[in-house]
Amino acid sequence: MKPKTNRLKQGRRRSRKAGLPPGTLVHVGDRKVESVRVTYLDYDENKVEEKQVSAIEECFPFKATPTATWINIDGLHDVEMMERLGKEFDLHPLILEDVLNTGQRPKFEDFGKNVFIVLRMLSYNEALQAVESEQVSLIVGAGFVISFQERVGDVFEPIRERIRSNKGRIRKMKADYLAYALVDSVVDSYFMILERFGEKIELMEDKLVSDPTEKTLQQIHAMKREAILLRKSVWPLREAVSGLQRSESDLIGEVTSVYLRDVYDHTIQTIDTIESFRDMVSGMLDIYLSSISNKMNSVMKVLTIIATIFIPLTFVAGIYGMNFESMPELKWKYGYAAVWVVMLTIGMAMVIYFRRRKWL
Amino acid sequence: MKPKTNRLKQGRRRSRKAGLPPGTLVHVGDRKVESVRVTYLDYDENKVEEKQVSAIEECFPFKATPTATWINIDGLHDVEMMERLGKEFDLHPLILEDVLNTGQRPKFEDFGKNVFIVLRMLSYNEALQAVESEQVSLIVGAGFVISFQERVGDVFEPIRERIRSNKGRIRKMKADYLAYALVDSVVDSYFMILERFGEKIELMEDKLVSDPTEKTLQQIHAMKREAILLRKSVWPLREAVSGLQRSESDLIGEVTSVYLRDVYDHTIQTIDTIESFRDMVSGMLDIYLSSISNKMNSVMKVLTIIATIFIPLTFVAGIYGMNFESMPELKWKYGYAAVWVVMLTIGMAMVIYFRRRKWL
Amino acid sequence: MKPKTNRLKQGRRRSRKAGLPPGTLVHVGDRKVESVRVTYLDYDENKVEEKQVSAIEECFPFKATPTATWINIDGLHDVEMMERLGKEFDLHPLILEDVLNTGQRPKFEDFGKNVFIVLRMLSYNEALQAVESEQVSLIVGAGFVISFQERVGDVFEPIRERIRSNKGRIRKMKADYLAYALVDSVVDSYFMILERFGEKIELMEDKLVSDPTEKTLQQIHAMKREAILLRKSVWPLREAVSGLQRSESDLIGEVTSVYLRDVYDHTIQTIDTIESFRDMVSGMLDIYLSSISNKMNSVMKVLTIIATIFIPLTFVAGIYGMNFESMPELKWKYGYAAVWVVMLTIGMAMVIYFRRRKWL
Amino acid sequence: MKPKTNRLKQGRRRSRKAGLPPGTLVHVGDRKVESVRVTYLDYDENKVEEKQVSAIEECFPFKATPTATWINIDGLHDVEMMERLGKEFDLHPLILEDVLNTGQRPKFEDFGKNVFIVLRMLSYNEALQAVESEQVSLIVGAGFVISFQERVGDVFEPIRERIRSNKGRIRKMKADYLAYALVDSVVDSYFMILERFGEKIELMEDKLVSDPTEKTLQQIHAMKREAILLRKSVWPLREAVSGLQRSESDLIGEVTSVYLRDVYDHTIQTIDTIESFRDMVSGMLDIYLSSISNKMNSVMKVLTIIATIFIPLTFVAGIYGMNFESMPELKWKYGYAAVWVVMLTIGMAMVIYFRRRKWL
Amino acid sequence: MKPKTNRLKQGRRRSRKAGLPPGTLVHVGDRKVESVRVTYLDYDENKVEEKQVSAIEECFPFKATPTATWINIDGLHDVEMMERLGKEFDLHPLILEDVLNTGQRPKFEDFGKNVFIVLRMLSYNEALQAVESEQVSLIVGAGFVISFQERVGDVFEPIRERIRSNKGRIRKMKADYLAYALVDSVVDSYFMILERFGEKIELMEDKLVSDPTEKTLQQIHAMKREAILLRKSVWPLREAVSGLQRSESDLIGEVTSVYLRDVYDHTIQTIDTIESFRDMVSGMLDIYLSSISNKMNSVMKVLTIIATIFIPLTFVAGIYGMNFESMPELKWKYGYAAVWVVMLTIGMAMVIYFRRRKWL
Repeated sequence: MKPKTNRLKQGRRRSRKAGLPPGTLVHVGDRKVESVRVTYLDYDENKVEEKQVSAIEECFPFKATPTATWINIDGLHDVEMMERLGKEFDLHPLILEDVLNTGQRPKFEDFGKNVFIVLRMLSYNEALQAVESEQVSLIVGAGFVISFQERVGDVFEPIRERIRSNKGRIRKMKADYLAYALVDSVVDSYFMILERFGEKIELMEDKLVSDPTEKTLQQIHAMKREAILLRKSVWPLREAVSGLQRSESDLIGEVTSVYLRDVYDHTIQTIDTIESFRDMVSGMLDIYLSSISNKMNSVMKVLTIIATIFIPLTFVAGIYGMNFESMPELKWKYGYAAVWVVMLTIGMAMVIYFRRRKWL
Repeated sequence: MKPKTNRLKQGRRRSRKAGLPPGTLVHVGDRKVESVRVTYLDYDENKVEEKQVSAIEECFPFKATPTATWINIDGLHDVEMMERLGKEFDLHPLILEDVLNTGQRPKFEDFGKNVFIVLRMLSYNEALQAVESEQVSLIVGAGFVISFQERVGDVFEPIRERIRSNKGRIRKMKADYLAYALVDSVVDSYFMILERFGEKIELMEDKLVSDPTEKTLQQIHAMKREAILLRKSVWPLREAVSGLQRSESDLIGEVTSVYLRDVYDHTIQTIDTIESFRDMVSGMLDIYLSSISNKMNSVMKVLTIIATIFIPLTFVAGIYGMNFESMPELKWKYGYAAVWVVMLTIGMAMVIYFRRRKWL
Repeated sequence: MKPKTNRLKQGRRRSRKAGLPPGTLVHVGDRKVESVRVTYLDYDENKVEEKQVSAIEECFPFKATPTATWINIDGLHDVEMMERLGKEFDLHPLILEDVLNTGQRPKFEDFGKNVFIVLRMLSYNEALQAVESEQVSLIVGAGFVISFQERVGDVFEPIRERIRSNKGRIRKMKADYLAYALVDSVVDSYFMILERFGEKIELMEDKLVSDPTEKTLQQIHAMKREAILLRKSVWPLREAVSGLQRSESDLIGEVTSVYLRDVYDHTIQTIDTIESFRDMVSGMLDIYLSSISNKMNSVMKVLTIIATIFIPLTFVAGIYGMNFESMPELKWKYGYAAVWVVMLTIGMAMVIYFRRRKWL
Repeated sequence: MKPKTNRLKQGRRRSRKAGLPPGTLVHVGDRKVESVRVTYLDYDENKVEEKQVSAIEECFPFKATPTATWINIDGLHDVEMMERLGKEFDLHPLILEDVLNTGQRPKFEDFGKNVFIVLRMLSYNEALQAVESEQVSLIVGAGFVISFQERVGDVFEPIRERIRSNKGRIRKMKADYLAYALVDSVVDSYFMILERFGEKIELMEDKLVSDPTEKTLQQIHAMKREAILLRKSVWPLREAVSGLQRSESDLIGEVTSVYLRDVYDHTIQTIDTIESFRDMVSGMLDIYLSSISNKMNSVMKVLTIIATIFIPLTFVAGIYGMNFESMPELKWKYGYAAVWVVMLTIGMAMVIYFRRRKWL
Repeated sequence: MKPKTNRLKQGRRRSRKAGLPPGTLVHVGDRKVESVRVTYLDYDENKVEEKQVSAIEECFPFKATPTATWINIDGLHDVEMMERLGKEFDLHPLILEDVLNTGQRPKFEDFGKNVFIVLRMLSYNEALQAVESEQVSLIVGAGFVISFQERVGDVFEPIRERIRSNKGRIRKMKADYLAYALVDSVVDSYFMILERFGEKIELMEDKLVSDPTEKTLQQIHAMKREAILLRKSVWPLREAVSGLQRSESDLIGEVTSVYLRDVYDHTIQTIDTIESFRDMVSGMLDIYLSSISNKMNSVMKVLTIIATIFIPLTFVAGIYGMNFESMPELKWKYGYAAVWVVMLTIGMAMVIYFRRRKWL
């Protein structure tokens, strides 16, 4: 059961760091890519420049330009490079510590010179049949956004495409709008995860009615845990996005703020859906439990009907199996027939009784 | 089970849009009408003008007039028309995006030049025996209200009638009062839905006592889900109406604000009733479960009584069915009669025991 | 089951009004009295005047006088009279709408020229063995209080007596103190209802221990619903009284405000008690359920003891009831006795085993 | 069951007062002492004077002195004396009403000229094995504290001792510090009650594991009710102490305020512990219920094992007990032995099956 | 069961102090070390001085120096020493009272001249297989931090190492940063505890599926109690750290405040994980309970199948074991064979029936 392991590691990983001075850069988490990949996308209304660089220093010149620059870093284990980046862009040591420490909950922090956002990007792992969670960190400064991901592959491709092809308003806007767009696409991707989860619930509900087994219970429990994980990833986002939107930082413009309100709405919507899912999953447990009770009830009924009909009859047969010398009935001509009549009468009476009690 | 599908789609539909730039107009939802129907109602204290137009442009002249204008649009799939409307009335792109995206939760947003309200209009589908939910969006501007519905048919007919016949104060008031009247009639319509739901609960409670079956459990579960849906539709309305009432927008006048407080009260009342329903539905589950237990108990009792009486008797009969050569009792003159006496005594003792334990 | 009907009607009744313009006066609720009864009580420190009037207009002169006037109206169906009253006393249309619409939750609203209070007066209907709830509306203006009740008969008689006989400080105070006195006596009357409810709980708890039946469960469920109703009636009162007390309205004086704090305290105390009752009622359900389980357990034990002792014995008897030609034991002289010894030994062993397991 | 009666009376007693004008002095509660006992303790840094007076008027002279005076009254039924006291110390009628009405929840009220505090003093009644609750009211004025108790005997003796022997700082401080000391010693006494309760929980948990009976359930239920009572007594104290501490009354000095923060901390600590106890008690119920299930399970297993082994064997014996004329097996030389082999084989197979299922 | 005792003592210990004047120094708690150990660490950017002193007075000179001084005291029972320390450093008596009273919940208090912080340091006792909790108190003044622990051995060693070797920024910072570092390392150590707890949950979940026994329930219950203890230790920390961070005390600098926000984040993360654990533990109880039900169900099925097949067959055999003189079937040539056919048919029919019901 891989996903369980995955789930619990979040709290655990941090312990590796205990005792180090705050701001010490140590990558806490699994190394998910071979080598760190750094790309930049520099654009304004008139031009776009995109490149995968081999050394982080190639990105440094863009810091001062009036264009918007998006530096994306896939893979977090090159700690030394991070330090060079931090020095150049004047980042607070705690920012980089949190970037490298991949067990953060979603949050927003205003460090004055830049704004720091942590998100959790969810994806559905088909092999494990489980939701996986990856930490995405954004640093928004004057004229740049630096994004950090644990591995290559993300939900940002449509944004890149929009920048390249100058679709929508993104090329006309500053770095804050880019940051908004990134947050927005992460939140939008949650809806796909919820869709999968909703389908699973539907399947499970049908199965629950048609054929509940002990394995069903395990699956309900797994879904409950998955709902807990989803909740943990999305719930703090509400506060983070709300903080970002109402932030008084100069880095977040008025116009972007309106768009962030929209993201906030989507977050609430996601939370609402997750809460409904939780209600439904716990409702399924109730159904499962009472379905077990019902089954046991029907098993009991069969036993009771058979036993209640035949035990008295067997007693009657036992009577006339006794070997007393003087049992007048045994010598009666119609004794045997009479016993059959008695037994059939008893049997019929029982059946009628059960009918009336609606057991048959 | 159509309604279940319906219920879960809300979170799912959005995923179609993931990756598009914000403000892109895409109709997300089922196309519920063949063609879009646009009507306007322009009025002041002295005159009323009402018309179903073939092109949205016919409504544009009313934008500048001092009269109050209500433009109603049934059907959301004509995206191009929406864009023309948005351009003319200077609507924020996010407003139209939300209008077209029919999975919104009730909300109120102040965009400065206009105010945006999303409501959920509930109706009871007799065929599916389930509550259905349709998104109604209102845009309130200076001198106009634009309302969007997913399909033809609404709860606004009485308002139209009041405007036409100059009943009440509506003709004397501005567009904000019209917006209030629309919100009010949506909230008022909830009471009818709750009435239906209340009747269903009463029926179910009677059935639960008289004849609980496994199907009853399914129905209780379905009602629980319906209560969740109702809650999800009404709960956020509280905040939305409260926001609208306390809004500092110039578009909402002092007088209307008093009326909105009344709508707020009705919303709270609705929420109260839904919460009571939830309590009652979960109480029904308790009764159902303990009723199963009681049934099993009575099944067990019957089995136990029959078995406990006859098993010892059968043993006695078995004794005298043995073929030992020297069994003195078998030769006694009253042996057979004595055995009957013994067996009847045992049987009576058992019956008395059960009587005392109140099992009979 | 009348009370159930009663309970659910609250949400339902409103639906009759859906579609009418706000402020339209329609009596929504049961007509509980034949004819509307109007009385007034006009007093200051020196004089009292009390009269039952035939036309509401007789009360109008007191509007302008410096004395405190209490107009009480029993019965709400005379809509036309209400309209005349509303016009004369300059009441907001929404006030009268709420007065006539008898499904309001307790609330306080400040309309500037007057203050509007809705309360629910509870009474215990001995015939139905259930709590009944009646809406009492108070309008407090400068120098007058108008109270509306659904039927004749209330908890205000002691206040009338105090005014007539100049007991306490009421004659020295203004209309706001009268309003306070009315609210106070409604809240005080809740304690009597809670006393009844507490007695019912005590009786039920005793019964639960001594003799729980399926009917007990129904009664617990009924009490749970009653607790929900009580809660619904009292909980919003907290906010209403608190609003009234902290109101900045000129109509509520400093001195009265201190007294209102006392009412607020009593309301909290009532809510506390109701919450305890809810806890106790749900605790009773737990006891009931585990008592069923215990019963089933003891039924099972009886069955198991009897069956486990006699089934092996019957088998032994069955052995020697076989008709094989060569069964040496059958011919032994003490064969029969030996079998008895064997059987008694088995039986004793079983009994000892059950003793050790504490089943006997 | 005395304690139950005790518990429910709190809500009930008030009903005796319904209808009286507010501020009317009526003693609501049990008369717990024969005669009212009044003592005073007047002190400053240099002198102490302590006396039990026969008439309340003896205390009046201390009202104006600059020393701190503590007037303690045990027994509340001398209403007339209360009125004289109220007149002399200029107390608001609602204060005295609350003092006499012994069902108050803990609260703090600022009446300007004096501050009113209600506490609940808990004590463990060994005879009833239950917690008892007594109302303690404090009135703090400029230079005096008046305390009211329902009966003689309290937790204040150490404070008296400290004043007499000038231990600690109490003699150097004013009346507000005395009030703090009284509240503090009441809160401190809760820890002793919680200690008792904690011991009871421990005992119960051990019993639950070793020997759960139906009586155990009753005791768990009683503990749950006791926890509810504790909670009801302590929870509102939080707000009361917090209000007292942050009060802007001139009567509570800066220095005392710091000490009150300490009391607040202790109150929170008490509430924390009570909440943990509630969790533990409800956990015990879960254990009890599943222990019943486990018991039934093991009963079922015994029945099933015995029945399943012997029923088939009895059937085999029954076969050869039939009286058909032509049953070849009966004539075989080793028929009887063969049947034994068959039966033993069946029996062994069953035993092996149960072993594998871990039922044996 | 030592840990249980441990758990409940927290509320209990205080009772020893009831009645003493506030601020009286009494050590409430177990004396966990033989002798009190006092060490100091005085440092600035240029020098470090570390020493274990024999008399507290050796630390007094550092009070006035501009360097940062950390005085650490292991063992709390030397009350007299505490008093001398308190006098020298001008500590409020309530601070020292709380330091000695080792049942405090985490809190932060601003006493003006110094800031007081209480933390709970958790450690996993391998022998008892349980979490233990120790109180750590910090007093932050201008230029010094005094820390109190119940016993020798803590999680602060890495901090000492950092100071000695001038690693990180700690030597460049003031006493407030030292206080932050201490709080941070306590919070960081929680992650290790949670890691252990997470592993226990995983083990338990596997066991629950493979082999649930009655002991499993006990363990689940123990884990639930442990989760309650964890929660109680960490939850109030949230408020404490948040208060510390937003404190307006001059003692906490701007720069340190940013770091404290980081600690706050970690606290929230810890709480989140604990809440997930609680959810998982209560989910385990559900699984355990339904697993018991499932087991009973399968026991019932075996009984029912065996009994239902053989009881009717035994009846048939009983019929032909009767001794009537005229039973024609007994004389038929193929009578015996026919009975076998009948019995096999009945048996087969039963098996088919059970197959169809999926019991086999």
